[in-house]
Amino acid sequence: MANKIPGTEKTGVFLAAGDDLENAAGVLLGCPLDDTGSFRGGSRFAPAQLRLVSGALEEYSLARDRDLRDISFFDGGDLVLAPGDTEASLDKIAAAVAAILGSGKKPFLLGGEHTITYGGVKGCLSKYPHLTVICLDAHADMRSAYLGAAFSHASVAYYLRLLEGVDLYQFGIRSAEREELQGLRPGENIFFHLLREPLEKMLPILSERPLYVSLDIDIVDPAFAPGVTAPEPGGVTSAELLEIFSLLEKLKDNVIAFDLVEISPPYDPAQITALLGAKIIREALLTFL
Amino acid sequence: MANKIPGTEKTGVFLAAGDDLENAAGVLLGCPLDDTGSFRGGSRFAPAQLRLVSGALEEYSLARDRDLRDISFFDGGDLVLAPGDTEASLDKIAAAVAAILGSGKKPFLLGGEHTITYGGVKGCLSKYPHLTVICLDAHADMRSAYLGAAFSHASVAYYLRLLEGVDLYQFGIRSAEREELQGLRPGENIFFHLLREPLEKMLPILSERPLYVSLDIDIVDPAFAPGVTAPEPGGVTSAELLEIFSLLEKLKDNVIAFDLVEISPPYDPAQITALLGAKIIREALLTFL
Amino acid sequence: MANKIPGTEKTGVFLAAGDDLENAAGVLLGCPLDDTGSFRGGSRFAPAQLRLVSGALEEYSLARDRDLRDISFFDGGDLVLAPGDTEASLDKIAAAVAAILGSGKKPFLLGGEHTITYGGVKGCLSKYPHLTVICLDAHADMRSAYLGAAFSHASVAYYLRLLEGVDLYQFGIRSAEREELQGLRPGENIFFHLLREPLEKMLPILSERPLYVSLDIDIVDPAFAPGVTAPEPGGVTSAELLEIFSLLEKLKDNVIAFDLVEISPPYDPAQITALLGAKIIREALLTFL
Amino acid sequence: MANKIPGTEKTGVFLAAGDDLENAAGVLLGCPLDDTGSFRGGSRFAPAQLRLVSGALEEYSLARDRDLRDISFFDGGDLVLAPGDTEASLDKIAAAVAAILGSGKKPFLLGGEHTITYGGVKGCLSKYPHLTVICLDAHADMRSAYLGAAFSHASVAYYLRLLEGVDLYQFGIRSAEREELQGLRPGENIFFHLLREPLEKMLPILSERPLYVSLDIDIVDPAFAPGVTAPEPGGVTSAELLEIFSLLEKLKDNVIAFDLVEISPPYDPAQITALLGAKIIREALLTFL
Amino acid sequence: MANKIPGTEKTGVFLAAGDDLENAAGVLLGCPLDDTGSFRGGSRFAPAQLRLVSGALEEYSLARDRDLRDISFFDGGDLVLAPGDTEASLDKIAAAVAAILGSGKKPFLLGGEHTITYGGVKGCLSKYPHLTVICLDAHADMRSAYLGAAFSHASVAYYLRLLEGVDLYQFGIRSAEREELQGLRPGENIFFHLLREPLEKMLPILSERPLYVSLDIDIVDPAFAPGVTAPEPGGVTSAELLEIFSLLEKLKDNVIAFDLVEISPPYDPAQITALLGAKIIREALLTFL
Amino acid sequence: MANKIPGTEKTGVFLAAGDDLENAAGVLLGCPLDDTGSFRGGSRFAPAQLRLVSGALEEYSLARDRDLRDISFFDGGDLVLAPGDTEASLDKIAAAVAAILGSGKKPFLLGGEHTITYGGVKGCLSKYPHLTVICLDAHADMRSAYLGAAFSHASVAYYLRLLEGVDLYQFGIRSAEREELQGLRPGENIFFHLLREPLEKMLPILSERPLYVSLDIDIVDPAFAPGVTAPEPGGVTSAELLEIFSLLEKLKDNVIAFDLVEISPPYDPAQITALLGAKIIREALLTFL
Repeated sequence: MANKIPGTEKTGVFLAAGDDLENAAGVLLGCPLDDTGSFRGGSRFAPAQLRLVSGALEEYSLARDRDLRDISFFDGGDLVLAPGDTEASLDKIAAAVAAILGSGKKPFLLGGEHTITYGGVKGCLSKYPHLTVICLDAHADMRSAYLGAAFSHASVAYYLRLLEGVDLYQFGIRSAEREELQGLRPGENIFFHLLREPLEKMLPILSERPLYVSLDIDIVDPAFAPGVTAPEPGGVTSAELLEIFSLLEKLKDNVIAFDLVEISPPYDPAQITALLGAKIIREALLTFL
Repeated sequence: MANKIPGTEKTGVFLAAGDDLENAAGVLLGCPLDDTGSFRGGSRFAPAQLRLVSGALEEYSLARDRDLRDISFFDGGDLVLAPGDTEASLDKIAAAVAAILGSGKKPFLLGGEHTITYGGVKGCLSKYPHLTVICLDAHADMRSAYLGAAFSHASVAYYLRLLEGVDLYQFGIRSAEREELQGLRPGENIFFHLLREPLEKMLPILSERPLYVSLDIDIVDPAFAPGVTAPEPGGVTSAELLEIFSLLEKLKDNVIAFDLVEISPPYDPAQITALLGAKIIREALLTFL
Repeated sequence: MANKIPGTEKTGVFLAAGDDLENAAGVLLGCPLDDTGSFRGGSRFAPAQLRLVSGALEEYSLARDRDLRDISFFDGGDLVLAPGDTEASLDKIAAAVAAILGSGKKPFLLGGEHTITYGGVKGCLSKYPHLTVICLDAHADMRSAYLGAAFSHASVAYYLRLLEGVDLYQFGIRSAEREELQGLRPGENIFFHLLREPLEKMLPILSERPLYVSLDIDIVDPAFAPGVTAPEPGGVTSAELLEIFSLLEKLKDNVIAFDLVEISPPYDPAQITALLGAKIIREALLTFL
Repeated sequence: MANKIPGTEKTGVFLAAGDDLENAAGVLLGCPLDDTGSFRGGSRFAPAQLRLVSGALEEYSLARDRDLRDISFFDGGDLVLAPGDTEASLDKIAAAVAAILGSGKKPFLLGGEHTITYGGVKGCLSKYPHLTVICLDAHADMRSAYLGAAFSHASVAYYLRLLEGVDLYQFGIRSAEREELQGLRPGENIFFHLLREPLEKMLPILSERPLYVSLDIDIVDPAFAPGVTAPEPGGVTSAELLEIFSLLEKLKDNVIAFDLVEISPPYDPAQITALLGAKIIREALLTFL
Repeated sequence: MANKIPGTEKTGVFLAAGDDLENAAGVLLGCPLDDTGSFRGGSRFAPAQLRLVSGALEEYSLARDRDLRDISFFDGGDLVLAPGDTEASLDKIAAAVAAILGSGKKPFLLGGEHTITYGGVKGCLSKYPHLTVICLDAHADMRSAYLGAAFSHASVAYYLRLLEGVDLYQFGIRSAEREELQGLRPGENIFFHLLREPLEKMLPILSERPLYVSLDIDIVDPAFAPGVTAPEPGGVTSAELLEIFSLLEKLKDNVIAFDLVEISPPYDPAQITALLGAKIIREALLTFL
Repeated sequence: MANKIPGTEKTGVFLAAGDDLENAAGVLLGCPLDDTGSFRGGSRFAPAQLRLVSGALEEYSLARDRDLRDISFFDGGDLVLAPGDTEASLDKIAAAVAAILGSGKKPFLLGGEHTITYGGVKGCLSKYPHLTVICLDAHADMRSAYLGAAFSHASVAYYLRLLEGVDLYQFGIRSAEREELQGLRPGENIFFHLLREPLEKMLPILSERPLYVSLDIDIVDPAFAPGVTAPEPGGVTSAELLEIFSLLEKLKDNVIAFDLVEISPPYDPAQITALLGAKIIREALLTFL
């Protein structure tokens, strides 16, 4: 059974995914980590839900003028993690990401909580010792330790900034603790409220290095994504977010990995958060592969 | 019991509807067709829900500066359809629409799935052998045959375009299969993403013929209408949609029929989709009567 | 890719299912038919939901004192059906069931609406020209034609009784049209309200022939299964239903196929209907394999 | 328009209701009073919901072996009440009930909160100056004044006992304030926990006078009726409740009016409370007409 | 127990509220009035829900660059009101507000329905005999009597305008009865659809007097606040609403009281309405204290 | 502020709780631990929800014939735990329980997940070095290590059995892994399916030692408690569970502590699980104080 990512199990298959791992250019990997939610949980159910609702979308994207059937990607299922042992789970994610990159493919991670980005980035460092991480997020996530836990969704950016070889740029931040902002340089490595404008301005810098793109779905207003673990009123619209891919397209050759995090299906009976998430995954696949 | 549309049953009464069919200028007709959903169903419950929540609105529209109590319309209840036999149901809709038009009234159809538009337009052709259909919709609905079914919500535009005497203009489309776009002329008979701008541009052409206006509620973003059968992220706001009626007002004399489709109440416990739908119906009545 | 049932797609994998089709004694097959609902739909989502929640159960059954890891079964995924063309879908189900039986395995069908039983039984007739069908159901489903549709969930028992070579026994019926009861023999081939007592009494007759067991989840009270297409108040408890397997165990050698139908996940945010369904599937696998 | 109860509006039509008020033996009357909820509200939406879901039931009752099509009843729609002015609303209910009885018909009231029973009983007193009220209820509702309001769902039994000419018998009570029980005679005019047994015992006394039967849906356990204003764990099953009609049948000639109260649809997305309610209405019509 | 507002009970504590009433500059006061809903209720649960979800926010506001830990406010719990006796409840609110102002603190009222504003404003009049009320609201609320009730959410503005010493300015109104607009001066004391622009224009006039600011959450579109008693499609976004505080900041010295009304938690399982409400309360505290 | 349990915060107050910690005989303590859910989470919200809905109950219990106003208990609020660091949280619980017992009061813990029982029992051991734990639970919870985590809801019974000085008796178990049952003695220290019968039989043994009673709400069928983290179909009714207190009353003098665990409010929009939970707490207070 070589046609499988080790340590995974299937929870459906994403729209138009092929079944040939070896020849795939991209790999979807579910990372249902749901350990450290301070407000509410549920992100463990996101990968399965994203796959389920993906069938409601078209394979073709009008915005990208490209079709999932023209690219090759494999749905690697979900990593089997260790609920309650966050560090062990992050190691599993790092190992899987390193293996995917090692075989010359691009990983697309389906969270799970934002903490998975730490595992994903660590997995990238083995191949790319210097890289830049772009976070689109409502929250600064810069707490050094949140309620006693070392790694958590609220501290992921803090620990990413500490990683050697990693540069972090955060866009669209609209919520933070005052203490979290110490040492950051607003307008340089962290940008408040806005998404497109600062991203456009930073394109020259961002295109200098390999890029890891992390998208926390709560960047959009809760109206467009009610099913998240920490809804933060006052965000952008889903249309504004989807348009970002026309910018990210210019960084296509830099992008080595992508993740989408913090969708919590139990809080969205209408499934519109997961549908937005599935559309984002489709656009990401069509943009970066 | 002449004060009744044949073949109907009552599921409540829309806000301010009169009870005198004979002297009414407009007729509401529920068409709870819910046969061919590829993703999720529930539109059969929309007409009853629209009536139920309409009581939460005012009869007067600030935007139109007009009051439902100033116009005369009758709520004809719901057509009793044949679940599973889509063609028979479409024939019933066509016959009822032809009868309403034949008695000199304008029909306002409450879907049900988008397929009802095919029945509605056929019913109009008996009186108006050449007519133009305006579709405001997120999806192109241009599949020639969807999953083996001849008539379906995903092919309604395809079959409308085949009808002799019918011109079709589609606005706001943001999702399609690549194959569906063959033979269409973007910017001429199909317009992507935008609503107001292309509609304004096409006003001269649209005012040449009798008009059937079909509004698929999924034209707005799922944030504003989560209770739909196929939510497509990235749409317009409800405010932008409601403003369209100031444009459609200029086509008032052309408009012979109107439908509102694809609301699925079970997916919206907050009922905001149905409330938007009821407000649209109010604005349509105040605009076209 | 021989390790696959033709015409299927994956929507997750049921708890403890093996991945070796060839050597499996049983095969799970999703049949997401959801065409003919007279009240509400949603059963198309049941197979994926059953698989998702199955992970919350143990592989071991205290009641059966047996473990899923001791038996061999394959999860064949979901048949790709043709929404709107019920007869074509039933043919696909019949063909798949015939193929599974032809390879010496027992099929376990995951509905979808009750109509799938007609397809399932027809598939069995090719190998077993005389067989008995046991239906546990709240509704008689004996309408000759329901709202104009030939095959529907409301007429499945009617058409089963017309099939040559098929004997039908119905248990637990608590809802029927008066006209439906004509020609039936209460206490002989149809039993009202009760489940265990009449089933026990009929064991000698039921053990004479090959048996197809069909379980409509609405046999239990809506309190225990709110997520169904047609809730009928006044049913048995889930404990009473689960105890039935100690009786059905005595028919183990007769049972050639099993189906579970009419679960509608959208109406059950707590997922307790699907969890009951998954437990029933586990008990059925442990009883009949 | 004589075919209408004055002061009402339509919110759908109950299953199999005829449209001939004059010749009807029974009249359904919605009383959407929802003023005095101490915990949660929503009962104003019950009458419309009961009508909507009634279409999911059969006209025929296996338990009663009788069919709605064999009896004549009219659905009088909903009384237009005065939210916030409870006494005015109760007067409207009393007047409507008196008028229905005056024309020789039996009223079947669809609440609304339990307070409507006070209006209903007062309406009966004009024709029947001595009558007995049977309450099936989880709560004693015997507070003399609840949170300052004279008439409320929590005091309805208190005020009924004060009405001259009225005897009140309460069954199945499982919640009360200690103070409320003063002056009551457990085992004589109030019975705790049990339903069938004491009702059977009291049959001789209950058959001496005209009877008003009031059924608070919270008599069943919240599992069977989650959509109520004040769920009280520990009640009977829906099957046990439905069987009560075989007892009430013996009082058929005494029963002059019936009400069903306290269903709150917003708290039951699966609609099982309303479906149980609609089945109760069907059984009541088939038992008392 | 001097550290308590008389007549209150606790339902949690708002984020970062201190426990020293005496030295607090501001006081939160829950007013769970939920008597007069014409469409749907539920606002009685809002104060507890606002407190519960406030913990998901940061104490620090990026937009205000200020932190709740820098100001002093006390959470006074909920007033115990008299369901069904609206006038008595309004008197309690007025008395509590007068007492808070009398001790030199600013009250921040958590509704409850919009009617509470009448009580709040009356409480202010004892200290400030001439004051101006700003209402941000979707509805004109100018009915002289709504369905027979004197004070109701639909008439609160009507009665406010009748109060001697009170000037009322309404912004963002998008729904009204035609009759309600008589006597109003659009563009002078009532402004349709828009929020920021007219508010900015009126700043000179508004800064002449003490100000009571009342914010009805339905000012935003139902997409951003589905959990309200009367959703009115077509409103502003939550981002647009939050930006209003940068304008209101200029009136800081005038503002003597603030209320937030009409949140109905039962209609919003995703809790995004309450989260928006809690963020508004945080911004109001940081702006006006 | 001595009138407070150290390390806690308030999330409402339970029905009829007094505000005098010093003289209280019992103390309610919220333990919102929600770390190790293998299926779904949400139990962190249970203590606040239990308090919120407790107001819908009466202070008086008909079954116990006793009133909360006759006993003295204090609501200590919720312990502030460390999400993600389960052992630290368990230590906090143990310390708080030891302190409560040390001051001569009985603790009543409101979970949170079942893991809290480990903390609770450890806290008791300081005062009672030999004690017996009674678990009423659907699941055996006897895994030695579940998915890599030492302490988890699925292993709590395993670790309890390892604690020196602790005897554990489990009742009503209906789900287990086969491996978990090794070393247990069915009918002696673990009892399957049944509750009352074995509990009655074991009374003599149970009354020999101090008793810690732990009640996992999933002991009842999911129909009665849909809002749990791991619904297990086939349980007892809520009425059967509530009747257990008439047995437990005989152990009143032995019972030193009580906990109620595994309620997950997000999965129960009708709140019936929390209402059952609040009634259980009321009965426990009235039985053990």
